[in-house]
Amino acid sequence: MARLGVGLIGTGFMGKAHALAFSAAASVFDLDRRPHLAVLADADARRAEACAERWGFEASTGDWRALIAEPRVEVVAITTPNHLHAEMALAALAAGKAVYCEKPMATGLADARRMAEAARGRRTLLGYNYLRGPAIGLAKSMIAAGELGEIVAFKGRFAEDYMADPAVPHSWRCVRALAGSGALGDLGSHLIGFALHLVGEVQAVSGEVSTVIAERSTARGKAPVENDDQVHAVLRFANGARGVIDISRVAWGYKNHLAVEITGTKGTLAFNQERLNELRLFRKGDAGFATILAGPQHPPYGAFSPAAGHQLGYGDLKTAEVGHLLAGLAGSDALYPNFAAGLVIERIAAAIERASTERRWVDLAEL
Amino acid sequence: MARLGVGLIGTGFMGKAHALAFSAAASVFDLDRRPHLAVLADADARRAEACAERWGFEASTGDWRALIAEPRVEVVAITTPNHLHAEMALAALAAGKAVYCEKPMATGLADARRMAEAARGRRTLLGYNYLRGPAIGLAKSMIAAGELGEIVAFKGRFAEDYMADPAVPHSWRCVRALAGSGALGDLGSHLIGFALHLVGEVQAVSGEVSTVIAERSTARGKAPVENDDQVHAVLRFANGARGVIDISRVAWGYKNHLAVEITGTKGTLAFNQERLNELRLFRKGDAGFATILAGPQHPPYGAFSPAAGHQLGYGDLKTAEVGHLLAGLAGSDALYPNFAAGLVIERIAAAIERASTERRWVDLAEL
Amino acid sequence: MARLGVGLIGTGFMGKAHALAFSAAASVFDLDRRPHLAVLADADARRAEACAERWGFEASTGDWRALIAEPRVEVVAITTPNHLHAEMALAALAAGKAVYCEKPMATGLADARRMAEAARGRRTLLGYNYLRGPAIGLAKSMIAAGELGEIVAFKGRFAEDYMADPAVPHSWRCVRALAGSGALGDLGSHLIGFALHLVGEVQAVSGEVSTVIAERSTARGKAPVENDDQVHAVLRFANGARGVIDISRVAWGYKNHLAVEITGTKGTLAFNQERLNELRLFRKGDAGFATILAGPQHPPYGAFSPAAGHQLGYGDLKTAEVGHLLAGLAGSDALYPNFAAGLVIERIAAAIERASTERRWVDLAEL
Amino acid sequence: MARLGVGLIGTGFMGKAHALAFSAAASVFDLDRRPHLAVLADADARRAEACAERWGFEASTGDWRALIAEPRVEVVAITTPNHLHAEMALAALAAGKAVYCEKPMATGLADARRMAEAARGRRTLLGYNYLRGPAIGLAKSMIAAGELGEIVAFKGRFAEDYMADPAVPHSWRCVRALAGSGALGDLGSHLIGFALHLVGEVQAVSGEVSTVIAERSTARGKAPVENDDQVHAVLRFANGARGVIDISRVAWGYKNHLAVEITGTKGTLAFNQERLNELRLFRKGDAGFATILAGPQHPPYGAFSPAAGHQLGYGDLKTAEVGHLLAGLAGSDALYPNFAAGLVIERIAAAIERASTERRWVDLAEL
Repeated sequence: MARLGVGLIGTGFMGKAHALAFSAAASVFDLDRRPHLAVLADADARRAEACAERWGFEASTGDWRALIAEPRVEVVAITTPNHLHAEMALAALAAGKAVYCEKPMATGLADARRMAEAARGRRTLLGYNYLRGPAIGLAKSMIAAGELGEIVAFKGRFAEDYMADPAVPHSWRCVRALAGSGALGDLGSHLIGFALHLVGEVQAVSGEVSTVIAERSTARGKAPVENDDQVHAVLRFANGARGVIDISRVAWGYKNHLAVEITGTKGTLAFNQERLNELRLFRKGDAGFATILAGPQHPPYGAFSPAAGHQLGYGDLKTAEVGHLLAGLAGSDALYPNFAAGLVIERIAAAIERASTERRWVDLAEL
Repeated sequence: MARLGVGLIGTGFMGKAHALAFSAAASVFDLDRRPHLAVLADADARRAEACAERWGFEASTGDWRALIAEPRVEVVAITTPNHLHAEMALAALAAGKAVYCEKPMATGLADARRMAEAARGRRTLLGYNYLRGPAIGLAKSMIAAGELGEIVAFKGRFAEDYMADPAVPHSWRCVRALAGSGALGDLGSHLIGFALHLVGEVQAVSGEVSTVIAERSTARGKAPVENDDQVHAVLRFANGARGVIDISRVAWGYKNHLAVEITGTKGTLAFNQERLNELRLFRKGDAGFATILAGPQHPPYGAFSPAAGHQLGYGDLKTAEVGHLLAGLAGSDALYPNFAAGLVIERIAAAIERASTERRWVDLAEL
Repeated sequence: MARLGVGLIGTGFMGKAHALAFSAAASVFDLDRRPHLAVLADADARRAEACAERWGFEASTGDWRALIAEPRVEVVAITTPNHLHAEMALAALAAGKAVYCEKPMATGLADARRMAEAARGRRTLLGYNYLRGPAIGLAKSMIAAGELGEIVAFKGRFAEDYMADPAVPHSWRCVRALAGSGALGDLGSHLIGFALHLVGEVQAVSGEVSTVIAERSTARGKAPVENDDQVHAVLRFANGARGVIDISRVAWGYKNHLAVEITGTKGTLAFNQERLNELRLFRKGDAGFATILAGPQHPPYGAFSPAAGHQLGYGDLKTAEVGHLLAGLAGSDALYPNFAAGLVIERIAAAIERASTERRWVDLAEL
Repeated sequence: MARLGVGLIGTGFMGKAHALAFSAAASVFDLDRRPHLAVLADADARRAEACAERWGFEASTGDWRALIAEPRVEVVAITTPNHLHAEMALAALAAGKAVYCEKPMATGLADARRMAEAARGRRTLLGYNYLRGPAIGLAKSMIAAGELGEIVAFKGRFAEDYMADPAVPHSWRCVRALAGSGALGDLGSHLIGFALHLVGEVQAVSGEVSTVIAERSTARGKAPVENDDQVHAVLRFANGARGVIDISRVAWGYKNHLAVEITGTKGTLAFNQERLNELRLFRKGDAGFATILAGPQHPPYGAFSPAAGHQLGYGDLKTAEVGHLLAGLAGSDALYPNFAAGLVIERIAAAIERASTERRWVDLAEL
């Protein structure tokens, strides 16, 4: 089987997730080319070397530019902190490589625009792996087939509590230059991605971003939190649907509560990432909401298991994302969300921030 | 036991619910005065007579003004269509009677203001009976005791599908002069009541009301729907909390989905009227959300049953509301929500409509 | 409207529940005769008098035999402790009265047999009010209509934790002569009632009853618990269905968890009394289990509310039971479960106890 | 990193699951030796070759005996149909290899005994991967720490509907010689494994196995179903706890409903494999059942993700099982369940069948 050379930058949670997904993809899916784990880069060269051995990479480096320059590397996977995405992605694109970058694509709209510009006509993919779940695939296909009728309402939420405790110390996540926005970028980008994928283009927004814990502790006293802890907004979609969203990193009790609900003139469906193998569905005439358990009839589930109810996990979604990447590189799938699609997400996030500052509805056409 | 003369206007669903609640209250609660079902009024005098016999009223009339004039009647309960509330309530107040009126209090802000004005210093109560549930009582007491810390976010929703089908015919509910606003008044008033009761004063709103089904059938062709099918809005509370709400009468699959969630700096609680005997709670340090089943330790549950898990129903909440009314008339409780509190709900609803029309944030101080 | 004279014995939780139900029934249902609260009896005559005033009874007495002798009393409702049921019911039947008795009908099989014998050709009803819920009615009608196909399996459970804490003191509930069996009689009788109502005749049983907390405290030291805390059994039904049941009064976390599930060759339905307004249903071909919320199309819901999702409560089920009683006394319904049906429940409970003692399957024909 | 030679027999669903798990384990866990995918065997040599390339095996063969004879192969993984397990496992053990075999270990008690005998002092592991889930690990550790007090009751269920439709054709699953028992072996073995793991030794059983669909279609007409579709039984544990179990492959609506609940004198916990990342817990004094979402504090979750709520899937449990296997082979873990433990499961299953046939309680000591 032909091979595809992979270069991976970053060895954190996401780096490991990518490594596992590239390893598994060829066994799970029917691919033309098997990923070859060519080079692993980390600023800490020794860590790069240790992880390379553990994860099965052929080589390692402490210099990400060397990885990009490596001829064997055909696709560059970027899993570094957000503020490094733009520079690395631009360099990889300049070197003619395909780019697979974690979300959010950048820490500001200017960088996102440059990345989208450079990616024109090129193969790029952003790591919005929650879009790969079997329940989301089912939702998307039902909506596309008109089974919900015309979409009239969207409700979206992404709630976590990882910064709910005021005692959680200050970190790069609180610094605008390193993280970009707060909950909006980290969590909201996923939610906006769902809204776009399932409902369509957003036309205008109103709402507020707010910082609940204004200061957090550092080793040398308190430092200000420079970005949002929570977001509350209303959306108007181009197709006339309306929506509300709320996003929070200070919502006690929630761990990965990315929940959406979509109502059309013929039915309603609801999803929550904390139960990613389930879709709740009500169609006009039904006796009650049905809870559908993912099974092999809901791609990509069948590639993992022939029996329903066996549950896909987070890692499987990443493997499915890599499967999509590889199919896209082979030309059979249009990669989504690529950098152009990612820019749309960033523009909506920026519009919400502007609406909050200017206390008015902001049209997406303004950005 | 001393008696309290009750006059009830209206014999529909709400009329029957009031009749049952007045009958049950003395057996359920320890009251000073037993309600005496004195007079029942309905525009259809024969129907009034038949219902009076069935429900145990001493007398009946086809003329609601006669009921108000009746000396035995000390409290007037109004369960007629919304557009009649103002006239009846004002007449009853003018006659020196206490007034117990179904929600929404009026079909427009002007009427609501007049009613609140006339009610100053008088005993009035609005029929927001969902506030009487044991889970809401528990939520309120926990918040008041600071168990959630400072409140930072509110999420509220009231979804039903009673008009989701475009085939649902045109009715008084679609006519501004008869119903006032649509989902906003019918459902949203309950939701706003919850927000005020649990979080506190609302300072400003932004959002949109929208009509999904623009026309509905009448016997003589199509007629326009003059009010909203759904509402999507963001709220800023005086205490700094932010919120999102959505309200819909066209949300397929939902029957009485009045759901709220409140997050503070120490925890989160969640409630849904479709499971009114449950409260979901997460407090900082907890391993997961707990589902609390209502029991006798959660008033007014104990007045109905000494054993947890036996479930109160809609009728019991109405009985509890009447219990509160009677305690208030006896002077032991401050009646809530009275007409003054009802006016606050109406002002918020009006602010949402204005925000939608003017596409900007509207401060409550403007109304 | 003609009246029906009611005599009620007992003023505890069940006495109050009966009083409320008799008061409400005429308003809720379309009856031929309105119940008239004639006489209330309690061994404590002063308590009887106080409750009579509060609950609206015309007269009271400290002597239940006087109540039975009272000509105005046509139906005698018995809500006293279990060991008194037999004597009172037999006396009432001997006096020619209809009898409405709380469950379990007796504390032993001999008494139950005498009661059933005396009730032949007479109107009797036992207080298995959970059978009146809208979800159970829906389940029953679906099964009867063959919508589940042939029934092949039953799973039943009644779990509560009211005696889970070893610190719960000794009481009449632990004494064989006063309570009869323990969890088996108190809770299991409801569960067996569900099994009979929904699946049909039980042919044989195997299983064990066990006492988890062997002794409990009294004012004068420890006393033995003379009956079961929990029951685990398998059932074979006459129609070939098999089942498992478990019953417990020491199951931490449960308050009123009377849960049944029935599978047929065409589908499965599931119910839990802690959410009495819901029925879960899966039919061959369905995408997932649907959660059906009770509404007016599910009797007796519609008699209480025209709108789905408004929730019936425990008291409403009691009112529905009284409605059934009154319809039965008027001749329009066959009363169920009457004493004959109650005896079947008692025989199954006795068979489980015998199976436990003799460690073998026991055929119902043996008892 | 040192390598461990793996030989895998079988290329079906389980074969693929093993291949993926062996690939992932070294990246997920901190291992001494990296699994080396040495040889893949399938009766169809061409299929073996194709899968070997796709899954990354170095070699393939159509002869499983050749695989066992291969010196590079240190551990033999068996994923073939049940009736082949015994012969292959015995051969691998005879060749001095470690054996990792899918469940159920054999199709009859005699084979299981021979396998356990041959495995004495040797390293074996059975593929009961559901035991590896984070919620089960949490449950086990809480019980071991006494957090539930003394265990008094077990409720277990494994329901699926893969043969609920009478139209499902006859297959090897219906043939005693090929499958052994039916639902009892396929599903019940998992459930019994849970009971043993969480509660402990089983002393005696009573109950029934039954065949709901007596015949199924083949290409040449109907053929009899030779084993059970469902099982209903009661258990007595050596520690005094009692239990009920039901097992079904004809339970409409269920896909992988392996659900257990355990009550002790201090609390209750509940689990369902269809939501494998959740554990429901109630401890004496709690306000309600808490739903705990798996997170990094619940091994092996943390090896996969540092953030709670991200969900492990079926494949991750298999990877965790391989991690356990590798740790066991390295000497750091006692492998569980090995063949000796598997035999205990088989004896309990056999006891249930005997109890059903002889219609009496069967002591485990009898087998």
